Amino acid sequence: MSSKPVQDFYPEDLAWCYGCGRLNPDGYHLKTVWEGEETVTRFTPRPYHIAIPGYVNGGVLASLIDCHGTGAAAAAAYRAEGREVGEGPAPRYVTASLHVDYVKPTPIGVPLEVRGRIREMKGRKVTVEAELFAGGEVTVRGEIIAVQMPEHLRAR
Amino acid sequence: MSSKPVQDFYPEDLAWCYGCGRLNPDGYHLKTVWEGEETVTRFTPRPYHIAIPGYVNGGVLASLIDCHGTGAAAAAAYRAEGREVGEGPAPRYVTASLHVDYVKPTPIGVPLEVRGRIREMKGRKVTVEAELFAGGEVTVRGEIIAVQMPEHLRAR
Repeated sequence: MSSKPVQDFYPEDLAWCYGCGRLNPDGYHLKTVWEGEETVTRFTPRPYHIAIPGYVNGGVLASLIDCHGTGAAAAAAYRAEGREVGEGPAPRYVTASLHVDYVKPTPIGVPLEVRGRIREMKGRKVTVEAELFAGGEVTVRGEIIAVQMPEHLRAR
Repeated sequence: MSSKPVQDFYPEDLAWCYGCGRLNPDGYHLKTVWEGEETVTRFTPRPYHIAIPGYVNGGVLASLIDCHGTGAAAAAAYRAEGREVGEGPAPRYVTASLHVDYVKPTPIGVPLEVRGRIREMKGRKVTVEAELFAGGEVTVRGEIIAVQMPEHLRAR
C-alpha cells in the first residue's frame, strides 16, 4: 500500500518547484510516495523531452532523481518522527548534491519509475539512493544528498 | 574571441535535444562556445523554472551542466583534431555520468553562465568540469563524463 504523496502537503509558498510543485502550472508535478521501505516517483516524459531521437534527455532524468530525492527525504523525516505523510507540519528539503549515472539510454514513450532507499539520515542531511526503471529495466542510477531547507531561504 | 557554438553544427537528426537541440521548439536551445581555454554556455531561466520562490530549480541547473558538458566535449574533439568548430564532420557526445554540487542557492531572474574546462580526454571519453555563475558568484559546481555517441543509437 502506498502512502499519500509528500508533495501534496508542502506549504503553499513552497509548492512551486518546476519538478515537483503541485502549484507550478508549467512543471512536471512529480509525486513521491512510500511503498513499503522504498520511495517511488513515476513520470512519463513528454515527446519533446528527448536527448537524441528515441531516448530521454539526461537533464530531465536528473530532475527525476533530484525531486524524487527531496521528496524521499521529506518522507523519511515524517517516518523518523513516527508520523504518517500529511500528519502534522510538512518537512521540506533542498538538494546539496546530485549524482547520476546513465547506465544505458532511457527509451522515450514509456512510463518511468524511480525507486529509492534512504541510505542515511544525519542531522539535517538525508542521503537517498535511487534507481530509475524503464520497462522494468534499470537505465539510470542516482544519489542525492538533501538538506532540510534553511528557514532564511523562505521568501517573506 | 568566441568560437561558433558547437550545437549549430550537430547533424539535423541529432539536433533535437531538449537542452541544446537547435531544432527542438520546446527546448532550452543551449549553446556552447570556446572562449580561450574555457567552454561557455549562457542561459537565463524562465520565471517558472523555480525550486522555491526566488531560486532556480536544481534539475534545470543539472541540465545546464549536462548540455554544457556534452557541448564542451564536442568542442574538445574538434580542437584535438586541429579543427575549428564547424569545420568538417560534427562530433556528438552523450552523458555517461553527471555530478552537481549546489554550493549555494542560485537566484532566478539573472543570466547564468557556465564556464568549463576539459579535464581529460581518453579514447571516446571526455571529462568536463564546470562552474556556474550567477551575478559573478559561483553557485554550482559540476562535472560530467561524456562519451562519443555510439553509432547504433542513431535512429535510422
